[in-house]
Amino acid sequence: MSDDLARALKVERHPERAVADRNVAFAILDEGLICHVAFVAEGRPWVIPTMYARDGDLLYLHGSPASRMLGTLAGGVDVSVTVTLLDGLVLARSVFSHSMNYRSVVIAGRAHEIRDPDAKLEGMRFLVEHVLPGRWAEARQPNTKEMNTTLVLGLPLDHLSTKVRTGPPVDSAADRSLPVWGGEIPLSLAFGAPHADALVVDSTLPESVLGQTSRGARA
Amino acid sequence: MSDDLARALKVERHPERAVADRNVAFAILDEGLICHVAFVAEGRPWVIPTMYARDGDLLYLHGSPASRMLGTLAGGVDVSVTVTLLDGLVLARSVFSHSMNYRSVVIAGRAHEIRDPDAKLEGMRFLVEHVLPGRWAEARQPNTKEMNTTLVLGLPLDHLSTKVRTGPPVDSAADRSLPVWGGEIPLSLAFGAPHADALVVDSTLPESVLGQTSRGARA
Repeated sequence: MSDDLARALKVERHPERAVADRNVAFAILDEGLICHVAFVAEGRPWVIPTMYARDGDLLYLHGSPASRMLGTLAGGVDVSVTVTLLDGLVLARSVFSHSMNYRSVVIAGRAHEIRDPDAKLEGMRFLVEHVLPGRWAEARQPNTKEMNTTLVLGLPLDHLSTKVRTGPPVDSAADRSLPVWGGEIPLSLAFGAPHADALVVDSTLPESVLGQTSRGARA
Repeated sequence: MSDDLARALKVERHPERAVADRNVAFAILDEGLICHVAFVAEGRPWVIPTMYARDGDLLYLHGSPASRMLGTLAGGVDVSVTVTLLDGLVLARSVFSHSMNYRSVVIAGRAHEIRDPDAKLEGMRFLVEHVLPGRWAEARQPNTKEMNTTLVLGLPLDHLSTKVRTGPPVDSAADRSLPVWGGEIPLSLAFGAPHADALVVDSTLPESVLGQTSRGARA
């Protein structure tokens, strides 16, 4: 399978955007908040958004055993997971040279269920800490009943493909002198002001929330 | 196929998040900038990010005929396209009740190639105008050679599933009195300050760019 997968993951279009360095892939995975998971069920492809977390060379996914996605993936079928960070709009002189700046990682493999209770709890901790570092220790920990109603899956990061586009538009020589504005509009994910729910008595923000909002835009 | 698809698209998990109103789905599709496309190639599922645009009941996709995704989809195979807007992090008292606020549309169907030159050009116009309204008229229009090196596909929006989560965390009765901060951190896509490339002589921003940046965060 490995050779076929390596071939399938080779970036054929815009090969200049391919990045071989796995650390770049890992940084993208660590920055994103959600992934899109593709799998085949009932004879056709589906793609569903969900949260995830990376632990070294492993990607965690989780959810209800009753969900079609989790139930299907737990069976060890082929899956593809993609994380995309949108960094900007790229405006060229010609319509056709317009583009977007982005960073994406496409993963291919098979996920397995993590059954060992300690490893499963550790997977949950990674999932929570990925979204909001420090939150795990602030909130009530999962109990056995909650853990038993959740599937945690691990997807090995053995086969992945990273693409990155950065920088200004690339217009053809003939277009460069056209009197059309060209450049970039940066895009980022912005963290807004946190607001407490109606149950909160002490409005002091916890460290996990302060850690995110002090960064303003995370991306 | 329709009955099977309708059944497969029924929201089984968190049915309270399902939204039947197609206008809600259309608003999500109109607000998003990229979609994730799932398809089967070489015997396994793949998911790839790309841009799109909606024209009534049709979703346009485009790209190079040499790309695996476009080449595969143009063959009229089953495809799933998902657009996800991330609206916030939802912090509960218990780890397990943490969530995200989001709006997503999952589309299932088969795309077809749009070959008629006028219809194809109109598809391209929708793709550009979706990302940056007004930009089509500002930039150099596509010529025949460019149009011939691009595939434009149409995916009918006949079968889709919309899920929306909004609002505060939902903690169990037993957790509500825990001394843990609960609430939301809003998330949105932020448009940064545009910057011209090195070729720009007149730094006056065009209407299309002003239209976006004046909105600050688009989402």
